[in-house]
Amino acid sequence: MTAILTETVELNLDAYRAQVEAHLEAFLRKKAHAATSQHLPTLTVESVCTFIRAGGKRLRPILCACGWHAAGGGPEAANVVAVGAALEMFHAFALIHDDVMDRSATRRGQPTVHRRLAAEFARTHPRAEAEQLGTSAAILIGDLALAWSDELLHTAGLPAGRLASSLSLIDEMRTEVMYGQYLDLASSVCADLDLPLTVIRYKTAKYTIERPLQLGAAIAGADQRLLENLSGFALPLGEAFQLRDDILGIFGDPSETGKSRLDDLREGKHTVLIALALAGADDRQETQLRAVLGNTVITDADAEQARVILNETGATAKVEQLIEERYRQAISALEALALPAPAAQALRALARAAATRRS
Amino acid sequence: MTAILTETVELNLDAYRAQVEAHLEAFLRKKAHAATSQHLPTLTVESVCTFIRAGGKRLRPILCACGWHAAGGGPEAANVVAVGAALEMFHAFALIHDDVMDRSATRRGQPTVHRRLAAEFARTHPRAEAEQLGTSAAILIGDLALAWSDELLHTAGLPAGRLASSLSLIDEMRTEVMYGQYLDLASSVCADLDLPLTVIRYKTAKYTIERPLQLGAAIAGADQRLLENLSGFALPLGEAFQLRDDILGIFGDPSETGKSRLDDLREGKHTVLIALALAGADDRQETQLRAVLGNTVITDADAEQARVILNETGATAKVEQLIEERYRQAISALEALALPAPAAQALRALARAAATRRS
Repeated sequence: MTAILTETVELNLDAYRAQVEAHLEAFLRKKAHAATSQHLPTLTVESVCTFIRAGGKRLRPILCACGWHAAGGGPEAANVVAVGAALEMFHAFALIHDDVMDRSATRRGQPTVHRRLAAEFARTHPRAEAEQLGTSAAILIGDLALAWSDELLHTAGLPAGRLASSLSLIDEMRTEVMYGQYLDLASSVCADLDLPLTVIRYKTAKYTIERPLQLGAAIAGADQRLLENLSGFALPLGEAFQLRDDILGIFGDPSETGKSRLDDLREGKHTVLIALALAGADDRQETQLRAVLGNTVITDADAEQARVILNETGATAKVEQLIEERYRQAISALEALALPAPAAQALRALARAAATRRS
Repeated sequence: MTAILTETVELNLDAYRAQVEAHLEAFLRKKAHAATSQHLPTLTVESVCTFIRAGGKRLRPILCACGWHAAGGGPEAANVVAVGAALEMFHAFALIHDDVMDRSATRRGQPTVHRRLAAEFARTHPRAEAEQLGTSAAILIGDLALAWSDELLHTAGLPAGRLASSLSLIDEMRTEVMYGQYLDLASSVCADLDLPLTVIRYKTAKYTIERPLQLGAAIAGADQRLLENLSGFALPLGEAFQLRDDILGIFGDPSETGKSRLDDLREGKHTVLIALALAGADDRQETQLRAVLGNTVITDADAEQARVILNETGATAKVEQLIEERYRQAISALEALALPAPAAQALRALARAAATRRS
């Protein structure tokens, strides 16, 4: 697993992460047991289990714990662990469906759920049918993970008032991330910056940073004012996080990121980085770049040529600058918040890691 | 819209259905307004809206209202309407994803969501890409409907204790229907009856009848004993309902059912009807039937030949007998329950309609 925090912080977030993982394991063990005893298909539970065990930064649970401490929640209660587990299960759902929609072959260094299941079905079915079954099964397994993420939240043992405010934040978060995904899907690559900025706001900044942080604060009893103030830190940080992701998707080291660095180009992902490159490209550069984007059979040499264009047009440097600006904005907002010291320290470290990470 | 009840019952279920539909409309209007004001894609909301307006029996909300009355809930409160709307929104999710997985072209007499969206994308994209985008968009729109079904439940205004018991039933229901779907997907056509019976138990009997009925009862404050007793009525009725569906899928009148009567054969759906036909078929009949099942290019003449085999092998008559047995079992269980008279009358009428319906 890839850790998001490399420096030591006063809050023991490693211990929290381990508790979230143990909670997920226990939940899935119970599901596996129930499926076995009712003669229901256990491959569904196993698929979710394999996916979750394959890694991930557990960024959303960690932000939830930080939100809890930011609102003065004291030592993490069992329900903060359960809510973190619910966020991670939701993320499993989102990625499983994302991989189906993007037709991705690998995730977290392993075959994606639909690919793994297609291979399983290929033992007993013709290839084309096995592919289709793998996709259908992955849609269902994603649906199951979404339903289970709710169940984790419902069974977190939150007091009624806190459950109500959590459910309302979760409802917002889910609608937002799905709108972000839809916008991303329905848009075409162009030099316009507004669209990819809206996509990263909904698909990442709100989903990955703002809502998990607010959720943790809400279950510690934060008032509306603190929730709103946390957004001032979370949204620019979330944007910085995604802008870094866009750079890593093309320039990253696959042994560190666990993802191919051809996928974003192959999918023709509509990132800020690409929009800036198209905006700054001359005719030759634009033609070359467009020939690579969304081309499913690109080679390493094509990708290298695209990287050269991203650098030559100044797009890479400009994105680095956008990351730096947003990182500073997040840190200023954080300082102004005057949170309890351990929470502020953890969020500062997280912000630095999110903006400068290599994986 | 197709009504499930053709006889007049003392409970005004038509008025309740209209309230559920009005609640869904108001919810979606708010979503459309929010999307417009945030410059988010409104096609998502419109797709859900079009899908829901296209019809459906509203069977799950109606069962929820019956459950409420069965537990002595008095005139329907606003929250029974909201919970009914949540069930209908969940059903929209289930059908949208089901149609993607089955690659169905029509639903409720209209193009399926993925087909409608593929046609939309085809205005600006090459055909193959438009198809893929339509499928991805339908997956996302289904996800959104699932999240919105939760939101409808969370905002139903249920008292804390009742919300907790509802969420627990909803969690059960969702896991069950997804297991049922998965089993259905992963299994192959054969003469074994156990598998299709398990599928209809999870995919239909529990999802369509048992859980909605229990949910209504739970929000009226039913105890565990009543919830369990309602299952004795709901499960056989749910099986009868699905067995009737299997017959209608092949023998029904498309102008009444809104579905092609070739689809079930074309998909090679693993129904009890087909399992019984294979069990009773001689070599010639089996060969002919297997040539039709799962054959995507079958003609009306092929389907007619399959119908003859289903009749000759006695499978159709046997399924009619299974429906009759289950209907009687449900009615006996209902009599033994001694529910308030209006609820008992409505459930009796529902049972008769579910077992004998033509659409």
